[in-house]
Amino acid sequence: MTETTPGKLYGLGVGPGDPELISMKSYRLLQESQVVAYPTGRAGGGNALSIVEPHLREDHIMLPMMYPATAGKVADSPEYPQLMTDFYDDTANEIAAHLDTGRNVALICQGDPFFYGSYMYWHARLAEKYDTTVVPGISSVMTGPVVLGKPLCHRTDTVTVIPATLSEEEIEARLKVADSAVLMKLGRTLPKVRRVLKRIGRLDEAWLVERATMEGERVIPMTDDSVEKAGYFSICVLPCKTPV
Amino acid sequence: MTETTPGKLYGLGVGPGDPELISMKSYRLLQESQVVAYPTGRAGGGNALSIVEPHLREDHIMLPMMYPATAGKVADSPEYPQLMTDFYDDTANEIAAHLDTGRNVALICQGDPFFYGSYMYWHARLAEKYDTTVVPGISSVMTGPVVLGKPLCHRTDTVTVIPATLSEEEIEARLKVADSAVLMKLGRTLPKVRRVLKRIGRLDEAWLVERATMEGERVIPMTDDSVEKAGYFSICVLPCKTPV
Repeated sequence: MTETTPGKLYGLGVGPGDPELISMKSYRLLQESQVVAYPTGRAGGGNALSIVEPHLREDHIMLPMMYPATAGKVADSPEYPQLMTDFYDDTANEIAAHLDTGRNVALICQGDPFFYGSYMYWHARLAEKYDTTVVPGISSVMTGPVVLGKPLCHRTDTVTVIPATLSEEEIEARLKVADSAVLMKLGRTLPKVRRVLKRIGRLDEAWLVERATMEGERVIPMTDDSVEKAGYFSICVLPCKTPV
Repeated sequence: MTETTPGKLYGLGVGPGDPELISMKSYRLLQESQVVAYPTGRAGGGNALSIVEPHLREDHIMLPMMYPATAGKVADSPEYPQLMTDFYDDTANEIAAHLDTGRNVALICQGDPFFYGSYMYWHARLAEKYDTTVVPGISSVMTGPVVLGKPLCHRTDTVTVIPATLSEEEIEARLKVADSAVLMKLGRTLPKVRRVLKRIGRLDEAWLVERATMEGERVIPMTDDSVEKAGYFSICVLPCKTPV
């Protein structure tokens, strides 16, 4: 009897949205995988899948991993943390089952896997047991300024990255002492971020970048308060203060 | 008489060091360029060039742009700002001369062009006059944690990126209020950064990542004070405090 050599786990950053912004390494490891695992919402699809779709082969085995919820009612419930733990446990088991049969699994992650990427929750469950390679990706922090056409930082500028899901007080405390900044996870938090920027006197420097390099990309000055809600894949960019 | 259509300027992020971590888009635009412009030190070569070297064609026209200085005596002199202005002006003119003859110029930039990238100084001189495309790249901020094998940030963590060339007091003020952090441009500033980390009680969480994904890559705990000087392409990573 021969033992099956387990497959390899690839945690692949696939970049911000444009399928061409995937690295050659993530592309190659995707081709060396038999299974492509991707997070998806109830509606199916998802950004990570859209990014790699042009790069898929017909014989790729697709493994959609459906989040219990990404926002709204379920996310605010007391059961949410346990729901998510169960979700990661269950889907990690599905990935492990493929790896155990000798298949390589590409777990694709929009942006970068270790920079707010949910890949890290599967990594924590699988990387010790299986041969694992993580590939960094182009983050929206770098992509937003490029889409905007303004450098984010230079020389001695510091850059502060702030999840807009923090409280208004916490965002203000951090933005007050920031040079350049990027706010992530904007969505419903847009009015809160706008209030803070106004109070600290930097509203007119700030830009909303929605769906950078994806279909429906938009760049809007934060002063435009006709926009009350941003898509979840939006960031707010405060480029460097000092001229380049 | 026919007028020559000017060539296009491509500001290409080519990633952290591994030639395979270039995006498919930067790779394509490199192939669509006749000229490859790259910053280099007095010794010649340079990281940006090493990254694209495997991707070059024999008929690529190489345009090395030699910095007057990158560190040490000249950088500290009062003439330095003017030397750099002249350097960017002169080399921008060389690029423009190629563009004017209809050649596309790929200006390659290690990491990302708008994230501490010197590309921005040429962009400021050329982008208004010439058709310009900037392509983001994988930054060392994302690569360091991947090499280290530890996620940088998740959930409501903030990330503070700090050039270690700031004063000890400024670094301390920013690190004190940071969750996750990355210090850039380490080099001779290593002992200073180590002192600050010790004072704020986070030395044992911090890692030095040298030459991530390049030849000579090293990962060293910041507690190891046998290392007194880091290479210029080193970063210090403080991964997320809360467990993933």
